[in-house]
Amino acid sequence: MTRAETERRAMRRALALAERGPRGVNPQVGAVILSPAGEVIAEGWHRGAGTPHAEIDALSHLAPDQTRGATAVVTLEPCNHTGRTGPCSEALIDAGVARVVYAVADPNVVSSGGAERLRSAGVDVESGVLAADAEALLHSWLEVQRLGRPHVTVKWAQSLDGRAAAADGTSQWITGPQARADVHRRRALADAIVVGMGTVLADDPALTARRPDGTLYETQPLPVVVGSRPVPADAAVRRHPRPFVQHDGYDLAALLADLRERGVHRVFVEGGPTVASSFVRHGFADEVLAYIAPTLLGGDGLALRDVGVDTIADQVRLTVASVEHFGDDLLVVAHPVRRAAQAYAAQSAEATAAREGDS
Amino acid sequence: MTRAETERRAMRRALALAERGPRGVNPQVGAVILSPAGEVIAEGWHRGAGTPHAEIDALSHLAPDQTRGATAVVTLEPCNHTGRTGPCSEALIDAGVARVVYAVADPNVVSSGGAERLRSAGVDVESGVLAADAEALLHSWLEVQRLGRPHVTVKWAQSLDGRAAAADGTSQWITGPQARADVHRRRALADAIVVGMGTVLADDPALTARRPDGTLYETQPLPVVVGSRPVPADAAVRRHPRPFVQHDGYDLAALLADLRERGVHRVFVEGGPTVASSFVRHGFADEVLAYIAPTLLGGDGLALRDVGVDTIADQVRLTVASVEHFGDDLLVVAHPVRRAAQAYAAQSAEATAAREGDS
Ligand SMILES: NC(=O)c1ccc[n+]([C@@H]2O[C@H](COP(=O)([O-])OP(=O)(O)OC[C@H]3O[C@@H](n4cnc5c(N)ncnc54)[C@H](OP(=O)(O)O)[C@@H]3O)[C@@H](O)[C@H]2O)c1
Ligand SMILES: NC(=O)c1ccc[n+]([C@@H]2O[C@H](COP(=O)([O-])OP(=O)(O)OC[C@H]3O[C@@H](n4cnc5c(N)ncnc54)[C@H](OP(=O)(O)O)[C@@H]3O)[C@@H](O)[C@H]2O)c1
Repeated sequence: MTRAETERRAMRRALALAERGPRGVNPQVGAVILSPAGEVIAEGWHRGAGTPHAEIDALSHLAPDQTRGATAVVTLEPCNHTGRTGPCSEALIDAGVARVVYAVADPNVVSSGGAERLRSAGVDVESGVLAADAEALLHSWLEVQRLGRPHVTVKWAQSLDGRAAAADGTSQWITGPQARADVHRRRALADAIVVGMGTVLADDPALTARRPDGTLYETQPLPVVVGSRPVPADAAVRRHPRPFVQHDGYDLAALLADLRERGVHRVFVEGGPTVASSFVRHGFADEVLAYIAPTLLGGDGLALRDVGVDTIADQVRLTVASVEHFGDDLLVVAHPVRRAAQAYAAQSAEATAAREGDS
Repeated sequence: MTRAETERRAMRRALALAERGPRGVNPQVGAVILSPAGEVIAEGWHRGAGTPHAEIDALSHLAPDQTRGATAVVTLEPCNHTGRTGPCSEALIDAGVARVVYAVADPNVVSSGGAERLRSAGVDVESGVLAADAEALLHSWLEVQRLGRPHVTVKWAQSLDGRAAAADGTSQWITGPQARADVHRRRALADAIVVGMGTVLADDPALTARRPDGTLYETQPLPVVVGSRPVPADAAVRRHPRPFVQHDGYDLAALLADLRERGVHRVFVEGGPTVASSFVRHGFADEVLAYIAPTLLGGDGLALRDVGVDTIADQVRLTVASVEHFGDDLLVVAHPVRRAAQAYAAQSAEATAAREGDS
């Protein structure tokens, strides 16, 4: 086996180890240490914020003479950030590691620069090995780093003419069972589900992700209620398998920062209209899902209210990613263009914030 | 050639003759008279309300001894209605015609029954010859008979969230050039285009059907403005190739009856929101065309206002016929279900009304 083959095999193993760690504030990272002869001599992975990084975990299994001249294969660029344990790049240099192979670069400006530090200490560094696999594994975490906050999907159900309810407030059901099943599938893929207090008081939603037969999906999003009024003592959300979080401020940036600290990568905002509009207005909607039922309602029960557009030049243009059919309903999946641009501008400011936890 | 072949050939000729007549209040009808030996001995077609029916026109070219024992091949069932000239079925009987072949039945309860009258007088009658071709030719006329009024398409352009304009009223352009080109193509297929006075005063539309290069299509819809305020002296609609019609009442049934009398089969309602909602609310929308631009606007500039739905059980459900893409925009073509059912109920009442003109 060539060295490249050996290292690719080690990277594949490191990715499998990474998956053992929890998805959350910190990235899932795995590491494999190879002897100069190319034998696996140690393995490690990161078990979450406050625990050693994968490289440190792997090195901890070895005596100093074993690490000298070894190759460290790591799924993420070793950090260059002094947390509770000092930077991993330093630890690798101190251990006398001769070569470091990693898959993806550390996107975080505070902790990145590890590769450069290693190189300037004379360590042989190679990057990009199985990069696509590592990016797939870290996809949602990388997106949080890029956005400086969790990724937000705002979903609503509307009539063709943009109403979420009839004049008297009745709305069940605008969309059909197939569209609703799709919503539940997507809930199960989110880390948190956010609704406004208005919806809690009006609809008493369970906020669980359920299969069409009523059973719960294995993974359940964290239920989050925004609003200052108290959640009723008998509210269905109190019976959710995960204790709900109530955020009583109107500051959505603070809400998202709080959710990021809780390890949330993907937020699914399910309304109501006031809260959905607020996310769009503040440029926090990275994706919108509009389930459109073939019906006309007219009247005041709007699915979106004020999204901060006063004149046509300020419109929130969208890029349509897909149009899907669920029974009689349509689902338009789209990405706000203007908001994405804003998010990019915000990124450089946000990026100065330290990676959460001891990462 | 068999008799069936001869008669099909004569029917094809009769259909070609029918097309020479004008589309309007009366159906386009053609007739061919065959001698007992199967030779074409006369042709006729209907030249519009107030002129002889096709059969009468054809018979007028023949001496009484020529018509005796002949076969009349007509695209529409001979009428049984005493207009200015007496029923055609009577005239065929009087002429001694032995056999009548027609394509489609007369849907009008007042003038229909001709086949039965012919049969009871001993005439041999066959129907359904090239029926599909005749139905295609008479499609929009047959629809007017079925509905008891012209067919109405209500078109609007909206943002994904159902707005036709931003908060300050600006709206040009929500949809892109490809969607607008499609609207113009469809204008050219309509007999009349209806807009509210609000739109005339706000947008000063030309109401012509134009190609993307700005040139006019050959056929131009009749421009119709609904509303009591005067059309400004310098309004663009005054420069339309056809003089515009102003209807100053709010009674849409009366408007549609008036347009029917003018020979209009297909009405294209282009708003604004007040007029579009009114057509939907009164159950006069047979087809809706919602051009959806991928943008969010929020606010009060709604594409539809009150469509008469107070509670979800009253929603105007639609059957989606197609979802088309025009550049970045979507077009949803749909048919109101409830309204169609109402139209059917209305049909039996309407059907007692006589076919317009001397038909
Ligand atoms: N079709 C759909 O997709 C859909 C989905 C959900 C709900 N709905 C319908 O929507 C209706 C409820 O609508 P809604 O608009 O009143 O309820 P909402 O958006 O769920 O809740 C509004 C409340 O959220 C709180 N809030 C927290 N952060 C906020 C912020 N940044 N901006 C504004 N409000 C914030 C406030 O509660 P406090 O006053 O307590 O502070 C506010 O009164 C119900 O009838 C429900 O059926 C429809
Ligand atoms: N996005 C789109 O597809 C689209 C299309 C067209 C227009 N627009 C926008 O819509 C705005 C104008 O909207 P609008 O709602 O004020 O105008 P509108 O619907 O064009 O006109 C309303 C007027 O129509 C007359 N009218 C006649 N019959 C009526 C009936 N049965 N019911 C109600 N009204 C009747 C009344 O005029 P009188 O008071 O004179 O009697 C009424 O004030 C403009 O800003 C325009 O840009 C958008």
